[in-house]
Amino acid sequence: MTDSATNMRLKLPIICFILEIILIILFGVLVQYDHETDAKEWHDRFNHDNKSHTEHTGHAESGGHSEYDNDFYYRYPSFQDVHVMIFIGFGFLMTFLQRYGFSSVGFNFLIAAFSLQWATLMQGFFHGMHGGKIHIGVESMINADFCTGAVLISFGAVLGKTSPVQLLVMAIFEVTLFSVNEYILLSILGAKDAGGSMTIHTFGAYFGLTVTRILYRPNLDKSKHRNCSVYHSDLFAMIGTIYLWMFWPSFNSAVTAHGDDQHRTAMNTYYSLAACTLSTYGMSALTAHDGKLDMVHIQNAALAGGVAAGTAGEMMLTPVGSMVVGFLAGVISVLGYKYLSPILEGKLKVQDTCGVHNLHGMPGVLGAVVGAVTAAVASKDVYGKGMEDVFPDVAKGEITASYQGVRQAISLAVTLGMALLGGLLVGFILKLPIYGAPPDTICFEDNIYWEVPGDEDDHKDKQTTVRMTETERLNA
Amino acid sequence: MTDSATNMRLKLPIICFILEIILIILFGVLVQYDHETDAKEWHDRFNHDNKSHTEHTGHAESGGHSEYDNDFYYRYPSFQDVHVMIFIGFGFLMTFLQRYGFSSVGFNFLIAAFSLQWATLMQGFFHGMHGGKIHIGVESMINADFCTGAVLISFGAVLGKTSPVQLLVMAIFEVTLFSVNEYILLSILGAKDAGGSMTIHTFGAYFGLTVTRILYRPNLDKSKHRNCSVYHSDLFAMIGTIYLWMFWPSFNSAVTAHGDDQHRTAMNTYYSLAACTLSTYGMSALTAHDGKLDMVHIQNAALAGGVAAGTAGEMMLTPVGSMVVGFLAGVISVLGYKYLSPILEGKLKVQDTCGVHNLHGMPGVLGAVVGAVTAAVASKDVYGKGMEDVFPDVAKGEITASYQGVRQAISLAVTLGMALLGGLLVGFILKLPIYGAPPDTICFEDNIYWEVPGDEDDHKDKQTTVRMTETERLNA
Amino acid sequence: MTDSATNMRLKLPIICFILEIILIILFGVLVQYDHETDAKEWHDRFNHDNKSHTEHTGHAESGGHSEYDNDFYYRYPSFQDVHVMIFIGFGFLMTFLQRYGFSSVGFNFLIAAFSLQWATLMQGFFHGMHGGKIHIGVESMINADFCTGAVLISFGAVLGKTSPVQLLVMAIFEVTLFSVNEYILLSILGAKDAGGSMTIHTFGAYFGLTVTRILYRPNLDKSKHRNCSVYHSDLFAMIGTIYLWMFWPSFNSAVTAHGDDQHRTAMNTYYSLAACTLSTYGMSALTAHDGKLDMVHIQNAALAGGVAAGTAGEMMLTPVGSMVVGFLAGVISVLGYKYLSPILEGKLKVQDTCGVHNLHGMPGVLGAVVGAVTAAVASKDVYGKGMEDVFPDVAKGEITASYQGVRQAISLAVTLGMALLGGLLVGFILKLPIYGAPPDTICFEDNIYWEVPGDEDDHKDKQTTVRMTETERLNA
Repeated sequence: MTDSATNMRLKLPIICFILEIILIILFGVLVQYDHETDAKEWHDRFNHDNKSHTEHTGHAESGGHSEYDNDFYYRYPSFQDVHVMIFIGFGFLMTFLQRYGFSSVGFNFLIAAFSLQWATLMQGFFHGMHGGKIHIGVESMINADFCTGAVLISFGAVLGKTSPVQLLVMAIFEVTLFSVNEYILLSILGAKDAGGSMTIHTFGAYFGLTVTRILYRPNLDKSKHRNCSVYHSDLFAMIGTIYLWMFWPSFNSAVTAHGDDQHRTAMNTYYSLAACTLSTYGMSALTAHDGKLDMVHIQNAALAGGVAAGTAGEMMLTPVGSMVVGFLAGVISVLGYKYLSPILEGKLKVQDTCGVHNLHGMPGVLGAVVGAVTAAVASKDVYGKGMEDVFPDVAKGEITASYQGVRQAISLAVTLGMALLGGLLVGFILKLPIYGAPPDTICFEDNIYWEVPGDEDDHKDKQTTVRMTETERLNA
Repeated sequence: MTDSATNMRLKLPIICFILEIILIILFGVLVQYDHETDAKEWHDRFNHDNKSHTEHTGHAESGGHSEYDNDFYYRYPSFQDVHVMIFIGFGFLMTFLQRYGFSSVGFNFLIAAFSLQWATLMQGFFHGMHGGKIHIGVESMINADFCTGAVLISFGAVLGKTSPVQLLVMAIFEVTLFSVNEYILLSILGAKDAGGSMTIHTFGAYFGLTVTRILYRPNLDKSKHRNCSVYHSDLFAMIGTIYLWMFWPSFNSAVTAHGDDQHRTAMNTYYSLAACTLSTYGMSALTAHDGKLDMVHIQNAALAGGVAAGTAGEMMLTPVGSMVVGFLAGVISVLGYKYLSPILEGKLKVQDTCGVHNLHGMPGVLGAVVGAVTAAVASKDVYGKGMEDVFPDVAKGEITASYQGVRQAISLAVTLGMALLGGLLVGFILKLPIYGAPPDTICFEDNIYWEVPGDEDDHKDKQTTVRMTETERLNA
Repeated sequence: MTDSATNMRLKLPIICFILEIILIILFGVLVQYDHETDAKEWHDRFNHDNKSHTEHTGHAESGGHSEYDNDFYYRYPSFQDVHVMIFIGFGFLMTFLQRYGFSSVGFNFLIAAFSLQWATLMQGFFHGMHGGKIHIGVESMINADFCTGAVLISFGAVLGKTSPVQLLVMAIFEVTLFSVNEYILLSILGAKDAGGSMTIHTFGAYFGLTVTRILYRPNLDKSKHRNCSVYHSDLFAMIGTIYLWMFWPSFNSAVTAHGDDQHRTAMNTYYSLAACTLSTYGMSALTAHDGKLDMVHIQNAALAGGVAAGTAGEMMLTPVGSMVVGFLAGVISVLGYKYLSPILEGKLKVQDTCGVHNLHGMPGVLGAVVGAVTAAVASKDVYGKGMEDVFPDVAKGEITASYQGVRQAISLAVTLGMALLGGLLVGFILKLPIYGAPPDTICFEDNIYWEVPGDEDDHKDKQTTVRMTETERLNA
């Protein structure tokens, strides 16, 4: 099953080494510790505020300032939860395919490790340099993981049909375009999108869908028998699902303002997901053959509530509002898997392996719309002084809440445009026959890019064969 | 293997949608953000204490108050650990059955997602309304997860023998009764039970055991060949075990008082579990055939130390006290699996699939007794001003420590009574032949309620069959 | 496959019970809560600083002190991440063997649960007693987990070839020697090694390699067919890998000074690991047959960046410096697996099951050297007042930075010496034929020490056999 065209002996090392060396050079020239990770700057600031520092060690200071002021303690637990979602969540969610587990977890690992470094540079560049330098700390680490999330969503659309080199090339472009889009939304348009319904989910999904459309394989049904799950692979995938589900409250709240904002965002997401789970189970039984639950729905649609709470989660959405949003997201997502995906594949030639349109695309758009509406109805009565954290421009009186809603809506349109155009461009780049992509006949197969050991039962199978041969011998 | 009686096409969607719609309506009418998740209230309180707030952004304030006062930062990391225990821990612990992995993780997911919403309402109602409203934040989220834990313990007792509809009905009643019992113990009797040896483990176990007794299936041995593990399913179950074991210190300390109390509780639990693990391994080899370790013991009994430290964990149990308790819990639990479970099943007709009596029942009672004794010997010499946090009524001089011990003992009796009576009632409700429960011949089987893909080796098996047919043909 | 020599019926219970009873007695005599876990001491100190305590409950105090001063809130999230690495990370990383999953996770669990208790005593003894008592809290829990990590690294070297009794005996000695070495390095020599490149990784690896050398089995190739992975076992192992990778930033930063130090260490490790992952993938494809990726490299070498950042991670290594270190670690580690391991096994008779020399040995030495160099070039210009946290003796002017570098280099030499001598001694102790070690013919096999259930396909296999017999009958 080895083919010189898909041989990675030189292609993969070359791109890995070149990319990492470029990253190292750029980090050397451009990247510095920020004032909370730099030993000198942190202590200068700290001592400036608090002369009594040297009298104590390691504990809070009587002047009211303490080591806790370091953003690390506000954000690092959330960061680690996000990190688990990116590497375990996305990685294992995609192991549902029977013979693509190594690639699902392994390529997820590779492109995530690359993307987070590249995103540090791109986001640092767009988020504003300090004297020609990019300053980094825990918040930039979270943002880099977020950007990586968008790349992994797109990976889900093309899963099983691409080489690792192709995926790295996709990541280079997608991280860049993600950062441009994020900059336009957050810095130019002044939109709010802490959990990334637009910047991460909508962008990642429609980018990936456009790429997979351009990479359309008319003869993919030759690999059809591999494009399905087996019993154990579905259990591995549930590890991914459950981790994504559990830590989504941390995802949506990881970069919101300190205090009530992080607290509220996590709670809204928690209830949105819980409601989404019930509607997913109901819809799965309702739409499925004989009322049997479908693992595809449970693994994916139950997460749509987290996607849909990505923009409005930090707002005063109320618990009941979160639950309504989650409930709708689950319904839409299952319907998408059941009725829309076959149409997308049959009519529009969009071969979406993981169904990212149903998990990230439509729920992302729903989340953006909910965010626009929730922003538009924001009032001082409800937010009080907390308005400064959530809608600073409205709080300052520069714009009305309705106008904030318009900003949010425009942001959705911009995101969709960027994703489609970007995906189109990158799709054609990825179509070049130089990346060692697998042939139509052996997609969804680890064996092309990995040394694959036998199955436990291979040994037995051989024994069986031997015994049968004996049988045959007896009969000869 | 599909039967119209077990068809969930209408039953499951109807109950899921009705329940979620009721939840949404009740949340809309009754539930509000608390003062730490509400933008206006948090900022009002914050600014009241600290006028200089607007001069700074996002960091601690010089008046001594800071965003850290928000309970989110004290409790959210513990909450996430508890969340992992509920969804990964309980979910995967039950995947040990060879063909029930989808149901173990999947039904665990469904009933937990429902229970945490319903528990928010029930606990909010009993814990005290604020002007007719239930106020929620991170502590109510933890409490909702705790209540869910009790339901999942009961799920363990009936595992493999119930339909998802039956489980949801059980959850409705069990969450309600749990909240009543918790209210009686904590608010009326003034007992302490931060880690839930009584409220969660003893209640959940004896409730579930009574339910499974009422649902006794005389012909369950027809499904006997499915009621066992295979090699890989035992490894999946170890994922659940290890997560429960690692995060139990967070479970027991999640809602204790801030400071030394959370710190001490986590540490006591850590040592209790470590000691329990050694006694479990020792007992497993001692009692097992040929001295071989039994996965059932390792997966379950090694956790009994966490259960047994659930009440006294926050007290001045001392590290050595914790270790003695954990050691005993491991011994009792293995003995229960080895000698008591067969008797319970044979003589008392209690078919306890996961052995929750050994993991949660007896260790829960042990934990309650240890809690009563530890409370009774509490003294000002040992607790100092910390007495206010652990035993406020003793600190105020309203009662003696001995009387606190009596309270604890009464609480255990109340819990056992509530669990047995509640289980009796709910067992008969669940016995109604309307929920689509599986027949005796196909219990412990995913195929009834799930679309199950083939195994990797099915393909090979077919090949084998084909090859054999050829052999036969040759012989014909 | 049961042999009276490997029967654990008495051996394992005896050692488990004796060890745990000794631990309980020693804890009873020697161990106390520290001032942050003791109710009285914490509240006394708290009230001394802040008279207004009783006016409030549970929240930060206006005098500038708060419950947050309790080290629990600085370190517990990191502790839990480390805990996951020890029990899930190491445990599942070693499940790659086809029939050794129970032992990998299960013995890892047993020896870790023992080691963390024993390490509490040993480290407490060497780190300094308080009035004849060992005081414990979250930092001692982290340190105990760290020491356990070293034992588990050694376990990786002897994996599949030892009985659980042998492993417990190894742990007794290794924990003791680890604590002596750690004391010499940190307290006598004044070295810095927060993430344990030397104390944990170098020590654990060379200790384990020496032990496995002494335990050399000339006929181990008789078990060769079991010393390899199968498809699913490699996926289980990836769970271990990814968790180790994700939480390594928490590992290296868990016991560094509060504030910028923890923050910087986590970030350095994050970038080191990301760079390491790219070099690992590149090297794996470059060195492997047909350019196919090798799971052994991905599972192990991608982690070398965490090991190599263990000493210098807390220093001002800079992001780019971290990336260079990680990149080199990945390259070295893959080359080790490819070219050095066969030589070690063939020429030096070191049978290193998991290749700990490549993951912990060489990268640990690299990390120590990087630490020495980074320390030697430290300057007040770069560290400012932060020098006090990282190099207190340099900050006080007692030594120069170059001399700190020398201290680091001497520490590496001491560690290597301790590991080799200790491993030699313990290897001979473990060679005594009294521990029930498996014979050469059935190494790497769970069945010796565990009740192992059948495989899912056993049932089918039997059917196949039956069907074949029928075939034979037909032919008779």
